[in-house]
Amino acid sequence: MKFCSACGAPVELRQPPDDNRLRHVCTICTTIHYQNPNMVIGSIPEWEDGRILLCRRAIEPRHGLWTLPAGFMENGETTSAAAIRETLEEANARIAIGELYSMYNLPYINQVFMLFRARLLDLDFSPGAESLEVELFEEQDIPWDELAFRPVSLTLQRYFAERKAGNMQFHMDDLEAPARPAKLSETAIPSIIAATNQ
Amino acid sequence: MKFCSACGAPVELRQPPDDNRLRHVCTICTTIHYQNPNMVIGSIPEWEDGRILLCRRAIEPRHGLWTLPAGFMENGETTSAAAIRETLEEANARIAIGELYSMYNLPYINQVFMLFRARLLDLDFSPGAESLEVELFEEQDIPWDELAFRPVSLTLQRYFAERKAGNMQFHMDDLEAPARPAKLSETAIPSIIAATNQ
Repeated sequence: MKFCSACGAPVELRQPPDDNRLRHVCTICTTIHYQNPNMVIGSIPEWEDGRILLCRRAIEPRHGLWTLPAGFMENGETTSAAAIRETLEEANARIAIGELYSMYNLPYINQVFMLFRARLLDLDFSPGAESLEVELFEEQDIPWDELAFRPVSLTLQRYFAERKAGNMQFHMDDLEAPARPAKLSETAIPSIIAATNQ
Repeated sequence: MKFCSACGAPVELRQPPDDNRLRHVCTICTTIHYQNPNMVIGSIPEWEDGRILLCRRAIEPRHGLWTLPAGFMENGETTSAAAIRETLEEANARIAIGELYSMYNLPYINQVFMLFRARLLDLDFSPGAESLEVELFEEQDIPWDELAFRPVSLTLQRYFAERKAGNMQFHMDDLEAPARPAKLSETAIPSIIAATNQ
């Protein structure tokens, strides 16, 4: 952030009174511009035979890899509405939303990733604009080595294990940044580093 | 938002390609400025005798009313770290963080409110800069008519009921905007309407 979104003047990093952090503060109108983490919300759509719906990504990061339908929560919606909308947008799939199942903190990219259990309502799904393919997978057919994001792999592993055990429970965890030579990767392969950061 | 925070030029509301919403887009550098919901995170600090720590607010909205320690999650932290930090800032109180207990969606103000169970570690607490008083309350002494926010009252009601029943469980709910004559209130009593919106 270089300019004030309220008046267009330059901003500077300054610690406002009664604050303990540097904020972007406008040099003219003194508006304080806070920056806060975002929520990425999605679903684990399960068909009646137990198979799970995955999408193959048509966009960066992680173009070509598989994921559960998920995306940034929008203003004016609830977390479960975001999960329903993302599933519709990415997989043209209708779900009945269930319980919140996973929450992963990704503080190194200022994100909180949440996944809801969901019942897939029909088989009339197809790739949305951000997906190359949409497919139902049994556990043994999940493309484990081609999953896009750690919260997705970790959630699916736990989901199948807990489903077998008949004990599915909400779980929260914190993930650290993957250890990578960031400088090199940022220059050489920007799409890969963006992807591995999640 | 009127100006681009990247280059200072005016922004306009426009629907970007492959998007289905109006976004603030820079008329010169074409940066898309997304706006997303924020997380408000706090704790339910319980002392070893069962009393709960509340703070009386020294700031708007709801100056003078009681609340659980909570505030906006910051970039670079996890949800539980946010709860620990807010409890320290508002009540100078140290906690051992427990399970996530409540999540309230407040889509009409673009917020998700989360409260964690917590064990208060010592009695050396005192009002932080944003609090007038900090006090431990037994259930029957909670100032129910002077609580600042609906997620706080609803959480405390459920907390005491479930604690008695010996069955404390994570719960998520969506709240609608309180029915108020917004136009009138915005003009007449801005602090009240800001408060009741939460």
